[in-house]
Amino acid sequence: MTYAMIGTWRMAFEGIQKAMADLKNGGQSTDAIETAIKKVEDYPFFKSVSYGGLPNAQGLVEMDAAFMDGNTFAIGAVAGISDVKNPISVARQLSDDHFNSFLVGAGASQYAMFNGFESRNMLTERAHKIWMQRIKEINEKNLSPYDGHDTVGMVSLDQAAGMAAGTSTSGLFMKKPGRTGDSALSGSGFYVDSEIGGATATGLGEDLMKGCLSYEIVRLMGTGLSPQAACDQAVYPFVEKLKKRYGKAGEFSLVALNNQGEWGVATNVEFTFAAGNQDAAPQIFMANPGPSQTTVIEPISAEWLEAYAKRIKAPVE
Amino acid sequence: MTYAMIGTWRMAFEGIQKAMADLKNGGQSTDAIETAIKKVEDYPFFKSVSYGGLPNAQGLVEMDAAFMDGNTFAIGAVAGISDVKNPISVARQLSDDHFNSFLVGAGASQYAMFNGFESRNMLTERAHKIWMQRIKEINEKNLSPYDGHDTVGMVSLDQAAGMAAGTSTSGLFMKKPGRTGDSALSGSGFYVDSEIGGATATGLGEDLMKGCLSYEIVRLMGTGLSPQAACDQAVYPFVEKLKKRYGKAGEFSLVALNNQGEWGVATNVEFTFAAGNQDAAPQIFMANPGPSQTTVIEPISAEWLEAYAKRIKAPVE
Repeated sequence: MTYAMIGTWRMAFEGIQKAMADLKNGGQSTDAIETAIKKVEDYPFFKSVSYGGLPNAQGLVEMDAAFMDGNTFAIGAVAGISDVKNPISVARQLSDDHFNSFLVGAGASQYAMFNGFESRNMLTERAHKIWMQRIKEINEKNLSPYDGHDTVGMVSLDQAAGMAAGTSTSGLFMKKPGRTGDSALSGSGFYVDSEIGGATATGLGEDLMKGCLSYEIVRLMGTGLSPQAACDQAVYPFVEKLKKRYGKAGEFSLVALNNQGEWGVATNVEFTFAAGNQDAAPQIFMANPGPSQTTVIEPISAEWLEAYAKRIKAPVE
Repeated sequence: MTYAMIGTWRMAFEGIQKAMADLKNGGQSTDAIETAIKKVEDYPFFKSVSYGGLPNAQGLVEMDAAFMDGNTFAIGAVAGISDVKNPISVARQLSDDHFNSFLVGAGASQYAMFNGFESRNMLTERAHKIWMQRIKEINEKNLSPYDGHDTVGMVSLDQAAGMAAGTSTSGLFMKKPGRTGDSALSGSGFYVDSEIGGATATGLGEDLMKGCLSYEIVRLMGTGLSPQAACDQAVYPFVEKLKKRYGKAGEFSLVALNNQGEWGVATNVEFTFAAGNQDAAPQIFMANPGPSQTTVIEPISAEWLEAYAKRIKAPVE
């Protein structure tokens, strides 16, 4: 039977590897999402998700996460949560409730503490140093404080044809306290319907929510389009529309998986992702916008991976 | 030239009346949304929006609001904001920013204070009494604490063909601290594209966000459907899908307006709304689900209005 996973950015890879081993053994897509995203959340060298994520402008690591079950449409989400080790697990537990399943701010953090989720100071020494350095650079070089916003988003398919989706992020770099993006927002940051497929987004949340692109990609797959055609047809015309109507478009990238284990990607910027299915072990790819509203996808090079590994662990002054 | 407005619930009426007078004189749809929703927020006898709104389970009035400009897709939103007189005005101002335009929790309240928005204790004596009474009833009669969640949502069209949408709510009655629903969520609580039309929702936010119904209605209008056909085709099949997949469906109602000033409504529960355009002065209507996935709409009766006015002002022990 078919099983598959896709996730945004190179950082998704190890989590997907681990979760796909479970899917191969008959594991459920809902468990796979939590397993894979927790692995990303826990890794201290990813500076845009959970532990090790950069703090907001006031120095607090505020996180957003969401979980959706494609069988039932049940959604759980948190925005602006702090001091909790695994926001994705909080979001998943919230998806069991019919009421009060999306919590924000202090209420979200209180819920996590009260329900026994592991508490943790999410600000690493390294993230603190990067934050200090950024503030210095912003002041000295007049850089945009908001350059960087990499969400991990994943979609999974299990052998019982169940699908799920999840997201987790510490949000826009140097964001204002309380800022949230698309990651916790159904239809914008994620959407999944087990009878069709799922999609998830990363990029400038403020622009992603203008287009409800995750929902739109799933809808297009539901009309019979392949995940790649659905991504291309949803994303590139919207980028043009946004430039025309809003005057500009932030960077964003979307990935999709259908209920046959086929996947697709569209992006207006260089973008890495990880994907695999029953026929192909998970691997890392590089996507770029191609000609005529298409996407160019290549396997990642060993050089790129090596440079990445060096970069994320490079000493910070 | 054409101009029009529609808003959820009987409570929208006076605000729409006031704002449509401005639209008639050439006012902008963005201003109309803020004017009309402020009027609802300020009226102390509406117990589900802003001043006079019921507090959460801990006794704090936490509010959600959003604003969207249909010309540019600019969105501003707040969730879990407290102690601010007009959340819709905060949301509108946030829509001017490309970054940090959706704020939650304490960060949202801080932004409002810091930017000079009028501060107010939003808990009226009446709301406090109703809350105390509810707690008593819930304990004594084993009632669901979550019975009630009426958002004001509006869509407007001005004579320059500009459209806008906005929402405001104090959320689900007896909600947990930090709970948010669909009202601040693009695509679920609201969506508007001036080249097509707009839609907005009220009801159980946890279920509305499972369907992205506001986006879907606008999309359907974009394929050429009338607002009424778009509402019917988006809402009723989704109610059935939700019952089948999730096992149940909360109450919800959606209203839509296109860029010709025509409107439509769909609901799975008795629902009042207010609407008007250049040809018809604003009035209050009653909608109910009809046979074969249609909606039955009638002018409101004088008896209903009288009973409503009595009910919302009835003494609370």
